[in-house]
Amino acid sequence: MSACLCLLFLFFTIFAEATYPPGGFHHLSSSLRQNKKTSKSKSESPFETRYFPQNLDHFSFRPESYKVFQQKYLINRRFWRKGGPIFVYTGNEGDIDWFASNTGFMSDIAPKFRALLVFIEHRFYGESTPFGKKSHKTAETLGYLNSQQALADYAILIRSLKQNLSSEASPVVVFGGSYGGMLAAWFRLKYPHIAIGALASSAPILHFDNIVPLASFYDAISQDFKDASVNCFKVIKRSWEELDAVSTMKHGLPELSKKFRTCKGLHSIYSARDWLMGAFVYTAMVNYATTANFMAPLPGYPVEQMCKIIDGFPRGSSNLDRAFAAASLYYNYSGSEKCFELEQPTDDHGLDGWGYQACTEMVMPMSCSNQSMFPPYENDYEAFEEQCMSKYGVKPRPHWITTEFGGKRIETVLKRFGSNIIFSNGLQDPWSRGGVLKNISSSIIALVTKKGAHHADLRAATKGDPEWLKEQRRQEVVIIEKWISEYYRDLKEEE
Amino acid sequence: MSACLCLLFLFFTIFAEATYPPGGFHHLSSSLRQNKKTSKSKSESPFETRYFPQNLDHFSFRPESYKVFQQKYLINRRFWRKGGPIFVYTGNEGDIDWFASNTGFMSDIAPKFRALLVFIEHRFYGESTPFGKKSHKTAETLGYLNSQQALADYAILIRSLKQNLSSEASPVVVFGGSYGGMLAAWFRLKYPHIAIGALASSAPILHFDNIVPLASFYDAISQDFKDASVNCFKVIKRSWEELDAVSTMKHGLPELSKKFRTCKGLHSIYSARDWLMGAFVYTAMVNYATTANFMAPLPGYPVEQMCKIIDGFPRGSSNLDRAFAAASLYYNYSGSEKCFELEQPTDDHGLDGWGYQACTEMVMPMSCSNQSMFPPYENDYEAFEEQCMSKYGVKPRPHWITTEFGGKRIETVLKRFGSNIIFSNGLQDPWSRGGVLKNISSSIIALVTKKGAHHADLRAATKGDPEWLKEQRRQEVVIIEKWISEYYRDLKEEE
Repeated sequence: MSACLCLLFLFFTIFAEATYPPGGFHHLSSSLRQNKKTSKSKSESPFETRYFPQNLDHFSFRPESYKVFQQKYLINRRFWRKGGPIFVYTGNEGDIDWFASNTGFMSDIAPKFRALLVFIEHRFYGESTPFGKKSHKTAETLGYLNSQQALADYAILIRSLKQNLSSEASPVVVFGGSYGGMLAAWFRLKYPHIAIGALASSAPILHFDNIVPLASFYDAISQDFKDASVNCFKVIKRSWEELDAVSTMKHGLPELSKKFRTCKGLHSIYSARDWLMGAFVYTAMVNYATTANFMAPLPGYPVEQMCKIIDGFPRGSSNLDRAFAAASLYYNYSGSEKCFELEQPTDDHGLDGWGYQACTEMVMPMSCSNQSMFPPYENDYEAFEEQCMSKYGVKPRPHWITTEFGGKRIETVLKRFGSNIIFSNGLQDPWSRGGVLKNISSSIIALVTKKGAHHADLRAATKGDPEWLKEQRRQEVVIIEKWISEYYRDLKEEE
Repeated sequence: MSACLCLLFLFFTIFAEATYPPGGFHHLSSSLRQNKKTSKSKSESPFETRYFPQNLDHFSFRPESYKVFQQKYLINRRFWRKGGPIFVYTGNEGDIDWFASNTGFMSDIAPKFRALLVFIEHRFYGESTPFGKKSHKTAETLGYLNSQQALADYAILIRSLKQNLSSEASPVVVFGGSYGGMLAAWFRLKYPHIAIGALASSAPILHFDNIVPLASFYDAISQDFKDASVNCFKVIKRSWEELDAVSTMKHGLPELSKKFRTCKGLHSIYSARDWLMGAFVYTAMVNYATTANFMAPLPGYPVEQMCKIIDGFPRGSSNLDRAFAAASLYYNYSGSEKCFELEQPTDDHGLDGWGYQACTEMVMPMSCSNQSMFPPYENDYEAFEEQCMSKYGVKPRPHWITTEFGGKRIETVLKRFGSNIIFSNGLQDPWSRGGVLKNISSSIIALVTKKGAHHADLRAATKGDPEWLKEQRRQEVVIIEKWISEYYRDLKEEE
């Protein structure tokens, strides 16, 4: 039972932080800290930070709905020519500076388009907290955190910005990755009068309401490892038994703590399991072709690297030792970590918001099949619901996202409705299984790369980028160019 | 000043009840009572009344948002074959039975389509009051009344209904007139995964945010009267001066009360003005080709009839006397009214909701030009805002509807986005000036009739219907047939 719940929690925090390690927010926080250390200092940033007075609740007129909070956004006018395009990143579940520094693609193409760049922070994340430090305290304050309010925030902010720039006819293209990609696609669908098109990268908009099989996410990760090395896959799959055995051993936990070089003694083997799983999950997601530092600093194709570590052990070595060594690549590629914190989640950056979103609207139930390399797990919706109630005091609305945004039979619906969306996915990314992988119409396009990972296309170009990644980005530029020139043609015809 | 404010209030209650007489809700209430008397008794009604447990707030997860209220809907399964189409009326600002009995078109065509008929009541109207009798008491409770919540209500109800009928693949077409037509069009735009198409009749979706000229509504009414008779137009235009003169006369008000056959002595000439204006406004709206009883019982082409009354007076008669006689056609066609109630608005049917909606999102500023037959009036937004604050404790959000639903440059936006909407309008209807009057794309179609009035096409067919009205309805049927057969073809291809 404890295993189940723990795993459940893992699922939901993994899901919870689509782009972050599971098992607790401390992993995210520390990686964020690293990113902050390595990112450019404020004076070097190409962005100006601004704040927009945003309404708390767009869908009610109760007196409290008029409360105003400061929504943070970043703007770069360097390449812009008045009347030219505006590229907007629809911020997701975190500090907007972090997304800006990991979405170099927009800055790379801005000069060509002479585009204005805008990155808008999602409400309840980073500095954009409607109730300040109290924002995440109660169900009452957190209640205003959801995707529809966020989309309306973006609509209002963009409209106001264009007015202030006296550039109301500028075409707006929205960009986003992961949850931000979902928001970009939904923004185009719900606000076509504000954005002429959307690049939705690694957006798992079909990961709801049983549209894709529950096991697909963990099956995809397992496939990544199997593709790298069948032995590697088998070692990881077998390691869980060895871990389970620890609980029956005398001095099992102290020995495990030593083996895992934990900073403090472990209280449960499940912390170790979550920690291992997190490493495999997130490494599959960020299995980029080149050295990168999104979740954590990692070499190119880190899944292969992990498997090399595992396969490099002498015959007869323990599977758990190998799994630990592989996971260490993720948590300690730089080699600077003296010990690992497995049981002390911290949330310095107010990122707990995603856990709440996963407990309300972003309900993506998952399971682990017997074919995966993870411990088998059947989804237990009731337990999940109980957890949400006890943690946040809310009851999930598991069918709401598909009611509000659709998703079921999406090809048939969007084949005859809507236009100008790119769904880009890399098949290394387990989230791609919940993405749109086939063209829907002549202008709702799927760009899929076999070796791409979680929104790889949105990252800044680097010298080592493989040809298929360059080609994906080239195609995106061509399509966006088409939207924009079509828009300007329409504008001329109107006059 | 008093004139201005009074007129302002008139605008906003006229607007407020898109389909009802201005100057107070008593007119509406009494016409509703008449309709109730003449409508079929419950046992004869082809509809079964049901209630759906609806969530109070779809766009927040605050504890209060989970409150459930009973949303009323009507259903008629007589013509339906399982798997067949579902025709849904997206209820507007009133009792759903009233709309059902005035939307005979849907029942007329249901047998041909073997369609299920569903009429859903709009939250905060009729019986669908989330806080019972207290629903309209405070800004706190009324705050949940708005179009986006209503659309989400419809989405959830339709989805649940299809599931309960085990007919999830049934195509849904939405229908609506006036504000209900706006909701139908917006529903197709926001929920294309739930409705395959929309017939939006007399939907003034461009009547916001200065998209159409502020004077267009009253100019259109004036044109209707001028087209019937230039003399009639002139008489009405001159009558206001005679009315104004009453306030300078000794015993002016008692004499005016006598002249206007009021049940109680008048306290202000403005009540008489509102009452007259209401007659002209609503008669232009319901200037149907045949005898009808929507707002009030009236003969065919009642504007012409009014003008005949005005023109029939002997030379030299007072303009005010003529205007009163014309207005009496609207208020007393049956001849049964012994006296008129001009100053006692009542709201037996909880219809005050529209006044609130007009003060929050449905902000449609209007003016009266010097060319109109009405007293000139310049829109005074600040005064309007003050009134809203004092009456409902809310501040209007005048740009919200166009931010949320679009409208500006609608042709350019929807030419490349969306499909399957019919915008039908009759040019006699002053609301048509805020409607979509030109085809936008091959499947976003405008059907315009020169002699049609407010959602005439949605009314039940009658023997006397003119050919152009029959033709408009025939075209609607052909288009809806196309949507449905296309949908079934797509469904087959999917399998």
